[in-house]
Amino acid sequence: MTRRKKRGLGRGVAIVGGAMSHFGAYPDKTSRDLMTEAYLDALATIDKGMDPADIEAIYVGNFLGELFEGQGHLGHIIADWLGLAPRPATRVEGACASSGLAFREAVLAVASGMYDVVLAGGVERMTNAPLENVHDYLAAAADVPFELHQAALTFPGLYAAMTTAYMAEYGASGEHLMSVAVKNHENGSLNPRAQFNVSLRDIMAQRAAGAEKKGRPVPQWRNEIDFLNDAAANPVVADPLRLFDCSPITDGASCVIVAAEEVAREYTDDVVAVTASAQASAGPFTTWRDGITGIPSARVAGRDAYEMAGVAPEDIDFAEVHDCFTIAEVMAIEDLGFFEPGKGAYASAEGRTARDSDRPINVSGGLKAKGHPVGATGTAQIQEVWNQLRGRAGERQITHKDLRLGLTHNVGGTGGTCAVHVLERI
Amino acid sequence: MTRRKKRGLGRGVAIVGGAMSHFGAYPDKTSRDLMTEAYLDALATIDKGMDPADIEAIYVGNFLGELFEGQGHLGHIIADWLGLAPRPATRVEGACASSGLAFREAVLAVASGMYDVVLAGGVERMTNAPLENVHDYLAAAADVPFELHQAALTFPGLYAAMTTAYMAEYGASGEHLMSVAVKNHENGSLNPRAQFNVSLRDIMAQRAAGAEKKGRPVPQWRNEIDFLNDAAANPVVADPLRLFDCSPITDGASCVIVAAEEVAREYTDDVVAVTASAQASAGPFTTWRDGITGIPSARVAGRDAYEMAGVAPEDIDFAEVHDCFTIAEVMAIEDLGFFEPGKGAYASAEGRTARDSDRPINVSGGLKAKGHPVGATGTAQIQEVWNQLRGRAGERQITHKDLRLGLTHNVGGTGGTCAVHVLERI
Repeated sequence: MTRRKKRGLGRGVAIVGGAMSHFGAYPDKTSRDLMTEAYLDALATIDKGMDPADIEAIYVGNFLGELFEGQGHLGHIIADWLGLAPRPATRVEGACASSGLAFREAVLAVASGMYDVVLAGGVERMTNAPLENVHDYLAAAADVPFELHQAALTFPGLYAAMTTAYMAEYGASGEHLMSVAVKNHENGSLNPRAQFNVSLRDIMAQRAAGAEKKGRPVPQWRNEIDFLNDAAANPVVADPLRLFDCSPITDGASCVIVAAEEVAREYTDDVVAVTASAQASAGPFTTWRDGITGIPSARVAGRDAYEMAGVAPEDIDFAEVHDCFTIAEVMAIEDLGFFEPGKGAYASAEGRTARDSDRPINVSGGLKAKGHPVGATGTAQIQEVWNQLRGRAGERQITHKDLRLGLTHNVGGTGGTCAVHVLERI
Repeated sequence: MTRRKKRGLGRGVAIVGGAMSHFGAYPDKTSRDLMTEAYLDALATIDKGMDPADIEAIYVGNFLGELFEGQGHLGHIIADWLGLAPRPATRVEGACASSGLAFREAVLAVASGMYDVVLAGGVERMTNAPLENVHDYLAAAADVPFELHQAALTFPGLYAAMTTAYMAEYGASGEHLMSVAVKNHENGSLNPRAQFNVSLRDIMAQRAAGAEKKGRPVPQWRNEIDFLNDAAANPVVADPLRLFDCSPITDGASCVIVAAEEVAREYTDDVVAVTASAQASAGPFTTWRDGITGIPSARVAGRDAYEMAGVAPEDIDFAEVHDCFTIAEVMAIEDLGFFEPGKGAYASAEGRTARDSDRPINVSGGLKAKGHPVGATGTAQIQEVWNQLRGRAGERQITHKDLRLGLTHNVGGTGGTCAVHVLERI
């Protein structure tokens, strides 16, 4: 007989602090440097302050420290560097979902009754490695014998295959996808810690000024889509994906501090609860039975998260989703039930995911503009939603609607892992 | 104000199944092959059977899959390979303590109320890599800039430094340490899944027969210590540590299935509870304030485990400890309070940790003889203690005393991480 139970936490868990380091190219900063920056900034966000001795355990999301900087066993390194040893410190790895999973372990650890206050963070140092190595390294996130060796695909190639399938099935075009890049750069221009703190219009103006200075013909792009259709400005990476469809290589870290709900008000009166924490896995994409125009682990994690929170997709006020490629954001907003299958690309092009829309997506700039230090992305999403729910997201704060429920969606590999969290202002 | 609380779990957690694969040199077996062997055997140990669909989440301890086989993101790989996708699957890494930590996350996940039944395992594939690479890879467990680059020590070198300090401080000799190797090989000779399922007497007989066959002078060792003092038979690796002071390079996997105590009897009437789960971390050994003749994270984790279990060291009936080197077992039995500082080496030489003693240590053969596939060691220790507590350890079963409380001690690196668990037959 198969056992069945409704899932839930033994006690409530809340977020009381969080921050991300500056995301960008900092090849001389080690993981410990980046994490220290995020940690100190996270401590400073705690409204009533926190004695670091209150932190009872640490979870560190990191994908490839062994390859990028020859350093594994990162849990104890971070604990020591932050002055938190001998606290238990655990490194959690789920490729690009590493810190989404680290956050989840922190939530479970508090819910278990073992700890009241836990630090969850993530970090990745990437730009110190030669670019060709980076692509080889990241390939370790795939099912190597099947997706890489047998199917002979690179990572952008895997997402390009999904894009081709999506376009064939739903008639969407590259221009629909470009609208995701335009929006996320627009949002990123309002995020001072984003790697690309600049809109596509600004990038276009910079390029035009650069050409003029060098005495070259000055490009006359009519708008962002015109710019993105320019093969010189936006070359093909893995057809049909082009440069501006891809998230960048980034160094960065992020931290979130969680506490049992029953003690959270010792640290802040502005409490955000973890209403749902769900996670799912999937085999290599050649095994996906419902095709490759959506990610099965994201659908399962989304469904489980809604069930745990007792809400429906339409109840979610805004979300940070895993846009490692523009197609990934389109699939995410469908997999999460915000739009029907095949409608996500059109909805994006119609502005229905813009910052001032009914369902703002990636107001932080997303992985696309904020940057994607793979191990740091999950908790970077969490701290963004936390800030938005508390009305403290600065220039990019969503102000045209009341925010109660925010969602994060963090994917590892091509969907081998997905973590979905629902956060709620209480 | 610093918060203080007594630690405990929101609900009880028990072990209902467990097994290890054969440990040894299997260079053609991948991580997924090894884990499948351990998993299927673990399922078969469940007295009343289990529908695999009951397993709600998976934790996989693995240290260096990216380096040993170019495969990261091992959680989803294992979930898929075991037929358990889309269950959430998380890879946990704490160097040689990886699956001790994976087990701990499984325990916390059940205690949190999120899941009733969780699989925790560990795996490492090692012998497929050239030996010189193995040593480079394992070095990622240290604090690389400080312990390796600045102190210029290899991993055996780090433990050799501890050995030298221990000998200087307490007057112990290499022969005291050799007694650990003699005992653990004796125990391993009774463990059919051990890499070295052979006593030192058997090894000596094999060597003598080999010499005779080749027409060489037949060595006339008087006993095991005489053999271990033979520089040809037991060469120096990192002075004063010699070959038989070191655990081997091993391929292997292990699995444990945990369940909420309230459902455990659906699977077995022979229930073993997780009475304590503790973990601690430490900085590089150059920062240890109390010297290097003991491991600070082990002392903290041991202390916390006893406090959580409400027991004292003398209440522990037997233990599996992390004897990656003979000195490590000696330090472990002191750090855990079984013997006073400086007495562990002498107690070992006096047989006070033998299988038929008051305090049997490493009846499985330990890392030394059973083998040390680094990511698999933690849950291999757990399943050994679980089997002993249920009286199902075969030829090596402890029979001269009643067993109620068993302990596991799993160390990552040179002590950057330590996990201690107390298991209890209830």
